[in-house]
Amino acid sequence: MNEIKEVINDLLGYDGLKIIQRPDMFNFSLDSTLLADFVKIPLRATNIMDFGTGNAPIPLFLSLKTDRPILAVEIQPEAADLARRSVELNGLSHQITILETDIKDLHKTIESGSIGMITCNPPFFKYQASSNVNKNDYLTIARHEVLIDLAGILTQAKRLLTMNGTLYMIHRADRLEEILVLFHEQHFAIKRMRFVYPKAGREANAVLIEAKANGSAGSLKLMEPLYVYETSGEYTPEILRIFRFGKK
Amino acid sequence: MNEIKEVINDLLGYDGLKIIQRPDMFNFSLDSTLLADFVKIPLRATNIMDFGTGNAPIPLFLSLKTDRPILAVEIQPEAADLARRSVELNGLSHQITILETDIKDLHKTIESGSIGMITCNPPFFKYQASSNVNKNDYLTIARHEVLIDLAGILTQAKRLLTMNGTLYMIHRADRLEEILVLFHEQHFAIKRMRFVYPKAGREANAVLIEAKANGSAGSLKLMEPLYVYETSGEYTPEILRIFRFGKK
Repeated sequence: MNEIKEVINDLLGYDGLKIIQRPDMFNFSLDSTLLADFVKIPLRATNIMDFGTGNAPIPLFLSLKTDRPILAVEIQPEAADLARRSVELNGLSHQITILETDIKDLHKTIESGSIGMITCNPPFFKYQASSNVNKNDYLTIARHEVLIDLAGILTQAKRLLTMNGTLYMIHRADRLEEILVLFHEQHFAIKRMRFVYPKAGREANAVLIEAKANGSAGSLKLMEPLYVYETSGEYTPEILRIFRFGKK
Repeated sequence: MNEIKEVINDLLGYDGLKIIQRPDMFNFSLDSTLLADFVKIPLRATNIMDFGTGNAPIPLFLSLKTDRPILAVEIQPEAADLARRSVELNGLSHQITILETDIKDLHKTIESGSIGMITCNPPFFKYQASSNVNKNDYLTIARHEVLIDLAGILTQAKRLLTMNGTLYMIHRADRLEEILVLFHEQHFAIKRMRFVYPKAGREANAVLIEAKANGSAGSLKLMEPLYVYETSGEYTPEILRIFRFGKK
């Protein structure tokens, strides 16, 4: 018998939310939590989509901020299965729908210009054929641009978003130049950005981005830095606040 | 008699450096100080150029970091005159040469690919014909893109810099998307960036940039934030350190 180990974890301190994980797959990370916290649900967004949802941490987090329908897209059947069961476990099947498909195929079933807001915690690393990774591995697909790269994600996001729809993304700070160029090529205007620093005195490792489709550049708000750890190694008060998000 | 008032100021706490200023013109600012502090003189840069030098604060600051020749470019005759006399006052005429010319004309006298490092504290604001400014005014020319815009500056910088030459710039954080797109179009790779925050809890207002001509994007270092003021309104220890720069 091929035993697959699964665990049910608390979705951090989020009010009673649970998530089903598999240790051999990509587990929800601080990145997803920070992105969900960074999101401001746009008033006009009647629906929401999460690209590359994995076991659906972002839709679960967002269910605490909004009642609007969330379409969660995942290409890997095993991850989509965990996502579906995590959603059921939390009694959120009425709000969150798992779409087990390739982001690049969404346009075949979802009308262009019909999505008000998209979130995405994408693969952070470039993939080269020479990369020393197993490209069929769950973790590799979640972390490396094997099945889709940033340009591909932005192309599909642009296609699906309404005029002035909002895209939220977290990505690596060291790819910032490329990121902004690609956003610009797809006519996304960056509206808010926030850099994530592991601690004071260190370089930023991640960046949170809010962008508008068809917006005009030039009014970017560069938010105060987000520090994860105190120099003592403890989480900062802001991170602890984010972890308590669901507990009003 | 048309009396023009001039004052001789200390160049902040910089060891004995003086600068001649005119209250009706653009006076050296914190931006120039922060940019000069941010600069690391590249080992291979045998010469240095400062675009839009005004009364030459950046070349004066840089003379504390390097003995290499500095060409300081200024289009406004009155500012170039102040710059020349400030350089003489500090006994730095052997190192700093004022070129009273348009940045766009430099290529007529300076060989392409011959400059190792360029610094620039450019006009921060876009200029529209409808802008409510006097476009012949000294301050307007220093602050608004009347005579040259960012694309123009980058085109000329690229032309003059050696292969892998380094460009240092300070600019407004809210123009970041446009800035990175324009750098990318001129094949500059951003190597280091640092955001300047007026104080904790506020948005960044400026960004310090180090870029390499003909570099490849993707290894950007996002430095720790630079805060100007404590919440008490005092300068931060780091700003005070920068002000004491010349005092080893």
